[in-house]
Amino acid sequence: MKKKSNHPNPAVPGFKAAGLNCGLKAKGALDLTLVVSDRPAVAAGVFTKNRVRSPSVVWCEQTLRKNPEVRAVVVNSGNANACTGAQGTLACKEIANSLAGELKIQPRQLLIASTGVIGVPLPWEKIVSGVPALNKKLSSKGWMDAARGIMTTDLTLKTARHAFKLNGRNIVVGGFAKGSGMIHPNMATMLGFLFTNAAVDAKTLKTALRQAVDPTFNSITVDGEVSTNDCVLCLANGAAGNPPLRKKDLPAFVEALTQVCRSLARQIIEDGEGATKFITVRVGGARSVKQARQVANSVATSSLVKTAVFGEDPNWGRIICAVGYSGVPVNQNRIDISLNGLPLVRQGEIAPGVSQPRLKSRMKKKDILIDIGLGQGRAEAEIYTCDFSYDYVRINAEYTT
Amino acid sequence: MKKKSNHPNPAVPGFKAAGLNCGLKAKGALDLTLVVSDRPAVAAGVFTKNRVRSPSVVWCEQTLRKNPEVRAVVVNSGNANACTGAQGTLACKEIANSLAGELKIQPRQLLIASTGVIGVPLPWEKIVSGVPALNKKLSSKGWMDAARGIMTTDLTLKTARHAFKLNGRNIVVGGFAKGSGMIHPNMATMLGFLFTNAAVDAKTLKTALRQAVDPTFNSITVDGEVSTNDCVLCLANGAAGNPPLRKKDLPAFVEALTQVCRSLARQIIEDGEGATKFITVRVGGARSVKQARQVANSVATSSLVKTAVFGEDPNWGRIICAVGYSGVPVNQNRIDISLNGLPLVRQGEIAPGVSQPRLKSRMKKKDILIDIGLGQGRAEAEIYTCDFSYDYVRINAEYTT
Repeated sequence: MKKKSNHPNPAVPGFKAAGLNCGLKAKGALDLTLVVSDRPAVAAGVFTKNRVRSPSVVWCEQTLRKNPEVRAVVVNSGNANACTGAQGTLACKEIANSLAGELKIQPRQLLIASTGVIGVPLPWEKIVSGVPALNKKLSSKGWMDAARGIMTTDLTLKTARHAFKLNGRNIVVGGFAKGSGMIHPNMATMLGFLFTNAAVDAKTLKTALRQAVDPTFNSITVDGEVSTNDCVLCLANGAAGNPPLRKKDLPAFVEALTQVCRSLARQIIEDGEGATKFITVRVGGARSVKQARQVANSVATSSLVKTAVFGEDPNWGRIICAVGYSGVPVNQNRIDISLNGLPLVRQGEIAPGVSQPRLKSRMKKKDILIDIGLGQGRAEAEIYTCDFSYDYVRINAEYTT
Repeated sequence: MKKKSNHPNPAVPGFKAAGLNCGLKAKGALDLTLVVSDRPAVAAGVFTKNRVRSPSVVWCEQTLRKNPEVRAVVVNSGNANACTGAQGTLACKEIANSLAGELKIQPRQLLIASTGVIGVPLPWEKIVSGVPALNKKLSSKGWMDAARGIMTTDLTLKTARHAFKLNGRNIVVGGFAKGSGMIHPNMATMLGFLFTNAAVDAKTLKTALRQAVDPTFNSITVDGEVSTNDCVLCLANGAAGNPPLRKKDLPAFVEALTQVCRSLARQIIEDGEGATKFITVRVGGARSVKQARQVANSVATSSLVKTAVFGEDPNWGRIICAVGYSGVPVNQNRIDISLNGLPLVRQGEIAPGVSQPRLKSRMKKKDILIDIGLGQGRAEAEIYTCDFSYDYVRINAEYTT
């Protein structure tokens, strides 16, 4: 869906950013992004659970396991560097060596991410030859180029920023993301990059990132697909000069990370391939959060529910059907469903006094809330998705390998 | 996909069939089907695993549990009799009582199935008022009307028949089915009705039906949806006069049932909503059949794979990606993939000598075979599906509740 949202500049003090075209994409479109911290930064990541994974993902996982202090993140679009065997690992090494030389850092102080077509060897020479120019372009004003350099089928730039005071210091969290297909919860299901000037230790950053990602990036689905490459990375460089975060500071920091993640996650759904609606599936009255998520996910990935929302049809039969096959032992006689606030199903049957004209008019809204009560407990969860339109098929049938 | 297949008349000796319009569907389209055995018939069924289930499904499960000897099957289309609370159960009773009176049988000797819109109370009075005419129409020539009476969004009639000799007797298995959306494996995921003149005991029939359904009806998927109503029923009335099946006769009988089920299952996929291709996903080299099925299912339900096949694009990246997120612990460096016989991926990388023009021309075929080797064991499985086209979205966005 087209949304005229402002794209905040995600600049964070103590970092510089750049984006350029190195020849991976045609027509000069930006395809190489670099963000560098002016001092060592603590890093954390959340990675795809796909068993088939890009060497770039493996590189980041190994790097963070050995030493979570890094200096830079490089991202290329136009090629996923996935399923290319030993060549893929070589590409990571060549890129890291080249950037390490140019930036005067160690290769293992660099995180790498890639996105684009799978199975085509990454022409890393193009990236390496772009490195000097990329370094020269680094600036505190390069963030929008950096955000643009990671886009693939994205129609919109995705940036977010949040600032708050902590113990008298200005803490900034800024980030950018990409993704509009192959988006599915319970993973880092796209590329997301977060930067903050806060001083945080590695363990705390990892905890905070996980807490911020679960209800945001891990709660969105476009098409139930889980990519080989996706990750969310967060770098914290301490440029704010705050004393390292203490336990009592954690909630404020997690909330800031979560706000940025939530904004980026929402931007991804709004830019979902072919999307015309933003759908929130909320499940309450569940025995556990896990069960609530499982039911919400079943509804949010149902092709029949998503095409019904595209057709603006309040087809609750498809919703209750998807609740029933989620695998969670629900009791159909306790299920309540409302659509954008209008009760539709009560205890498994159509609710009394349902007005089709009122329902139809509510379905015309861009934001659709499907609220499901299971009547079994107190746990709840939300999953965010978009509808399923002709354009999803067009985009994905015409995309050429 | 349009297919000019012959629709064999599924008539089975000792049964009579009829179909008529009782007013559930507009414009006089057939919406009520009855098949009656001229003597008590042993019955078995396989039912949806959806937790939200139609009272018609519950009726059949209870009936077969108590007494597997029945006389007739009645099916209505145009209304699923699902999610209508106590009214749904009442509807089953009223229909059964009315037919029992007309056919001079017990209500519990009748099996009931329904298909159509969910959540709208079934106007059972229309069915009851159609019962006398339905009884009058019963004939050994009524099978094509019976097959037509169960259709909903189906574009084609689905019938199959297989005859074979057993101990000198002519055994016939005939059947008809419906379904083109809400089709997903691991259940009776549509309506299928099988009839045979063989004499079989109830336990053997149940075993044989399960064996026939697993690799056929339970191995197809159109859209990953699992309906509230679906079932496969089989009635065996012994009119062939054979001595009850012995253990040594079982393979021939299972094979006959399987042939009919396979033909009907294939007809459902060919009529999949918006389908233009018939896709077989074969997974070999797995550690277990369960894992092979899980991987095949992941690929067969991937929207990105299905839209790629619609676009005739040999996008193996999407295939290997879906293999990776199936949940089965695969080793990406052992994965082989071929498309319609052309090797495409070898040990996780693009196979040597892949010719794009040859691949593209193979993709133009109506039948697409995606053959995946996991290199981990000897188990294998096949799942059948169709592609994902504009028309799937159109059909399901325009369908009105």
